[in-house]
Amino acid sequence: MTAVKHMKWWGWGRDGVGFHHEDKPGFAPFVLNAVGLDLATATPVEEPAFDELTVPASTIGEALRTSLVSIVGEEYATTDDLVRVIHTYGKSLRDLVRIRANSIERAPDIVVYPADEKEVQAVVDAAVAADAVIIPFGGGSNIAGSLEPRAGESRVVISLDLGRLDRLIEIDADSGLARIQAGAQGPDLEEQLNARGWTIGHFPDSFTHSTLGGWVATRSSGMQSDKYGDIADITRGLRVVRPGGVLVLRPLPSTSSGPSIREMILGSEGRLGVITEVTVQVHRKPAKRDVYAYFFPTFEAGIRAMQDISESDAAPSITRISDAPETGFSLATSKDRKGFDKFLAGTVLPGLMRSKGWDLEKICLSFIGYEGSVPHAKRQKKLVDSIVKKHGGMGVGTGPGILYDQKKFDTPYLRDFLLDRGAAGDVSETAAPWSKLIQVHDNTIAAAQAAYNQLGIKGWIMSHMSHSYHSGACLYFTFAFVFGDDPLGEYDVVKKAIQQAFVDNGGTISHHHGVGREHSPWLEEDISPEGVAVMGALFGGADPGSNLNPGKIIGAGY
Amino acid sequence: MTAVKHMKWWGWGRDGVGFHHEDKPGFAPFVLNAVGLDLATATPVEEPAFDELTVPASTIGEALRTSLVSIVGEEYATTDDLVRVIHTYGKSLRDLVRIRANSIERAPDIVVYPADEKEVQAVVDAAVAADAVIIPFGGGSNIAGSLEPRAGESRVVISLDLGRLDRLIEIDADSGLARIQAGAQGPDLEEQLNARGWTIGHFPDSFTHSTLGGWVATRSSGMQSDKYGDIADITRGLRVVRPGGVLVLRPLPSTSSGPSIREMILGSEGRLGVITEVTVQVHRKPAKRDVYAYFFPTFEAGIRAMQDISESDAAPSITRISDAPETGFSLATSKDRKGFDKFLAGTVLPGLMRSKGWDLEKICLSFIGYEGSVPHAKRQKKLVDSIVKKHGGMGVGTGPGILYDQKKFDTPYLRDFLLDRGAAGDVSETAAPWSKLIQVHDNTIAAAQAAYNQLGIKGWIMSHMSHSYHSGACLYFTFAFVFGDDPLGEYDVVKKAIQQAFVDNGGTISHHHGVGREHSPWLEEDISPEGVAVMGALFGGADPGSNLNPGKIIGAGY
Repeated sequence: MTAVKHMKWWGWGRDGVGFHHEDKPGFAPFVLNAVGLDLATATPVEEPAFDELTVPASTIGEALRTSLVSIVGEEYATTDDLVRVIHTYGKSLRDLVRIRANSIERAPDIVVYPADEKEVQAVVDAAVAADAVIIPFGGGSNIAGSLEPRAGESRVVISLDLGRLDRLIEIDADSGLARIQAGAQGPDLEEQLNARGWTIGHFPDSFTHSTLGGWVATRSSGMQSDKYGDIADITRGLRVVRPGGVLVLRPLPSTSSGPSIREMILGSEGRLGVITEVTVQVHRKPAKRDVYAYFFPTFEAGIRAMQDISESDAAPSITRISDAPETGFSLATSKDRKGFDKFLAGTVLPGLMRSKGWDLEKICLSFIGYEGSVPHAKRQKKLVDSIVKKHGGMGVGTGPGILYDQKKFDTPYLRDFLLDRGAAGDVSETAAPWSKLIQVHDNTIAAAQAAYNQLGIKGWIMSHMSHSYHSGACLYFTFAFVFGDDPLGEYDVVKKAIQQAFVDNGGTISHHHGVGREHSPWLEEDISPEGVAVMGALFGGADPGSNLNPGKIIGAGY
Repeated sequence: MTAVKHMKWWGWGRDGVGFHHEDKPGFAPFVLNAVGLDLATATPVEEPAFDELTVPASTIGEALRTSLVSIVGEEYATTDDLVRVIHTYGKSLRDLVRIRANSIERAPDIVVYPADEKEVQAVVDAAVAADAVIIPFGGGSNIAGSLEPRAGESRVVISLDLGRLDRLIEIDADSGLARIQAGAQGPDLEEQLNARGWTIGHFPDSFTHSTLGGWVATRSSGMQSDKYGDIADITRGLRVVRPGGVLVLRPLPSTSSGPSIREMILGSEGRLGVITEVTVQVHRKPAKRDVYAYFFPTFEAGIRAMQDISESDAAPSITRISDAPETGFSLATSKDRKGFDKFLAGTVLPGLMRSKGWDLEKICLSFIGYEGSVPHAKRQKKLVDSIVKKHGGMGVGTGPGILYDQKKFDTPYLRDFLLDRGAAGDVSETAAPWSKLIQVHDNTIAAAQAAYNQLGIKGWIMSHMSHSYHSGACLYFTFAFVFGDDPLGEYDVVKKAIQQAFVDNGGTISHHHGVGREHSPWLEEDISPEGVAVMGALFGGADPGSNLNPGKIIGAGY
C-alpha cells in the first residue's frame, strides 16, 4: 500500500478506533427501548477476515496496466485485492452491509495514485483511449453509492485515488482565497490553513476522512455553513481534468458568464472529469467561537424560533435543533455526568421546565453558535436570546455545546457498532421551505413508522434541523432498527419510505450528500423529468463515451 | 400594438423622457473637457423617423402564422414592422448605433405575446415542429446582444414576448418566497410586493424597464445585492418551458441534487428554454434604509477600506466607491445646488481636505448603505465608520446618498443624449479578487487610453466599485468619446481593449450583463476552452435542433 491513508476496508475510520458505551450508562437502556436490542446479551460479530472475502479478479489487460504504470510508477498503480476492495464502495449502510456479507459484484480493476495534475491528465487520456471507466476517489466516505463500479461493467474500471494531491498550494491573503489540491483530507487542509492563521470553516460530519474534492463533487455542507456557506459558496476556482485537457475556472467573486460551469462541476460526482484543485474562500480564525445550548418546549416552537432568527438581523454560525426523540437520545448518550448532564439529570432543570408547564417528553435541545469578534459574537447572542425568549425557549449555557463540539465527528462509528450487533443505523437529510418544514418532519417520521409496521419491526427515527437559510432549512434524520432475515430488503423499505416522504412533501432528495445511485430513483421527482433531461444532455455531451463514472446521479438506483 | 409596454424603438425608456442638463451647470464644461464635445454648439440630430427605416420583410409562411395565431389570438401574433423592429435589438450602444444608422440585417418574422405558460408551451412546440427559432424577449433592455436574430438565419424567427406574464402569483410569507411571472417588469413586481409589505431587494440600473425573467436569463445584479444577493442567490424556484414540457424546479433553500439545473437556467439567455415563472426570496421592507457618503483621499485607500469592510463583521447593503475621474463627473453633474453640493462647491469641505494633505484631483466619493432594524443599521454604520477612519476617509452625511437614490435609474438616458450629438457613452463591468482589483482598474484605464490614442481621439473612462464579496468585487467602467467616420469600428477598438484588459488581468468578461454576442469572443479566456466545451455540450444536448436563441453566449461575436 502507498502512503495514502485509507479507512478500514469493512467500516468507518481507522483500525482500532470505534464506538463504545461503557462510559454512557444511559445508552444501553435507550437502545433496548428504541429498537429492542439488548446490548447486555447481544454478541458482536468478529471483525471480518479479509481472507474470507471473494474479490473479483482484475480484468485489466497488460497493455493498459503497463501504460498506467508508466505514468504513475509501479508503486502507485496496483491491482492488489485489498486496495481494490477499499476502492469498491463508499461507507453507506448499504456498502457496509454488502462488504460484511461478502457481496462484491464488481471491484475496480486497478487503483492508481497519480502524483500531480499532469499524471491525472495522462491517466484520464490513457483510460479514455482504452475505453476504460474512471472513478475518482477521495477519502472514500461517500454514502450515496457514488464510488462503486456498475455491476455489469464490461470495460476496465480504474479507481483514480487523489490521495497524493493533498497540499495547500498558496494563500491569497488580500482576497481570502486558498488554492488547495483536491485530495487533501479535512484535518490536513485545516491544519495547513490554521498554521497560517486561516480556516476554511467547512466541517461536515465526515470531516476527518473526507476530501476537498469529494466535498465539491457531492455539494457538501458543514456544521458552520450558516456562517461560512455550503461548499458551493466556498468554492471559487476549480481545475478539473477532462479527456484532452484541463478545465480551468479562475477564482472569481461573481460572474455572469452564462450557465455556471462552477455549479456544473459542483455535485458532478466524477461525471464531468476529475477535480484536481479547488480555490476556496478562507477566513481569519475568529477571536471568539461559542456554541450555546437552548431548550424549547416543543419542536414547532423551536423551528419557529429558528425561522425568526433567519429573518432577523442576527447571523449565528450554527443553528440546530433536535426534535424530542433526538433530544432524548442526546441526553441518554452523553458521557459527562459532572457538568451539564448532572444538572439535567438532577431535579433543578426538570423542575423549572415543569413549572413552566412543559411536557418533558416533548422538550427539544438546540445549539446555536456565535463566531467573530468578541462584541460581534456577544451582540448576535443577545439578538438570538430575545428571539428564543419570545418563543418560550430557555438558554442553558455552553456546557452541552462543548460536549457537542468534542463528539461531533464520532457519529459514523456508531453505525459499525450497531452493524456488529445485527442492527442498522443510517441517516437521510433533506431541505425544504420553512412553511413546509414541520410537514416534511412529521410525514417523514410517519412514513418511517409505517415502513417499520409493514416490516413488523420496532424501529427508531429522530431528526434535527441542521442548517438554516433565508427561505428554509435542512432536516437531518437518523433511523435504526434490528435486521431480520433480509437486511438490504428491509433497509430498502425504510429508506425508500423516507426519501419518498421528502419529495412528496416539498423537500429535496438530499441537502448535502449528493445523488449517486442511492438517491437517483427520486431525481425526476426532485428536479422534474425535463430537469433530468437537461442534466442528461450535459453528461451525454460532455462524456460521449461514458468513461466518466457512468451510472451515477442519472442511472439505475438499487 | 398590445397592452404590453415597450421602450422607444430607437432608444432608452419611454417616449418624451430623456436626459437634459439645463439644471446641471457643471455638465457642459465637464463634457467639453472630457471628450471635446461642445454642447453649446453641438446640434442634436432629430428623432429618427420610423418611416425611413428599412425593415426586412417577414419570412413567416401562412401555416406557421396561422398556427401561432390559433394559439395566442390574432391580436397577440403580429408581423407589424414597428413591433418587429422593437424586438430586433436590445439597448446596447451597438444596437442604438445600428438602429439609428438604418442597419437591420435580420428582424424577427413575428412577435407573439402568449397569455400564460400553456400558450408559451404551445408556441415553443409549434416553433420547434416547424424548425423555427425562438428568442424570448422581456423588457428589451439587454446590452450584450442577446436578443438579435443571427444575420444569416434562414429559418423563421419568432420573438416570444413575455410581457403579458406579469403577475405576482403568491407569497409564502413563512418562507419569504414570492412566486412571480417572468415577464413582470421591475416597478410592477416591486409595487405588487410593496403593497403586501415585501421587497425583492433587486435594483439593477435597468430596473424600470427590465423583467424578472431577463434578470435570471442574464445573471443580473442590483444596487443592494451586497445585502440581498445577486439574482442567482435570490432565485429559488423556476418554471422553464422547453420543447415538449415544462422544467420545474421547486423552491428549495439548498440542495445537493447533482450539477445545479437552477444555475444552468441562470445566465442561459434563452438557450435552454423560456423562463415563465421564478420563485424569489423576498424580505419585509426594512424599518431603516440610509445611504451615507464618504470621501477617501485616493482610490487605493477606498478599495482597501471596502476590502476591510468585506472581511469585518459589518454587513452593509451597498458598498460603492468611484475612482477620481468618476468622482469628478458626479460632482460636475449634480443638480442640487442647495444642500450638499453647495457645501462641496464652497470652501469648507475642500479646505478641510487640503488641510489633511489630500490632492483634490484624487479624491474618491463612496456610498455605503445600511438597512434593517434601526439599531442594526446604526451598528453597521458604526463598524463601517471606524474602518473608513482607519483608511483616512471621512463621512459627509446622507445628502449625496439621497441624490444618488433619486437619479440612480436615469443613467441610461444619457447614452441617447450623447448619441444625439455624435458621441458614444457605454459601460463594461467585471469582477476580480481583491488582490487584483487595482491592477484590473489601472490596466483597463490604460488599455482604453491606448485605444483612444490609437484612434487619435480624446476619450474618457471612469469607474466605480459597485458590489463587494468576501473574495473580491465588481468594477464598473463608463467610457465615452466623440465618433469619427466609423462609429462601430471605433467602438470596437475601445470595447475590445477594455474586455481584453479584464481577462488579461484576472477579471471576468461580465459581472452582471451576461455574454450574448458582445462578450462571447472572450468566453474561452474567461472559463477556459474546456469550460466552453462543457457549456457547448449542454446547449447542444439540450437543444439539438438549435431552435432556442442560437448563436448567443457561445457563437460568433461581432
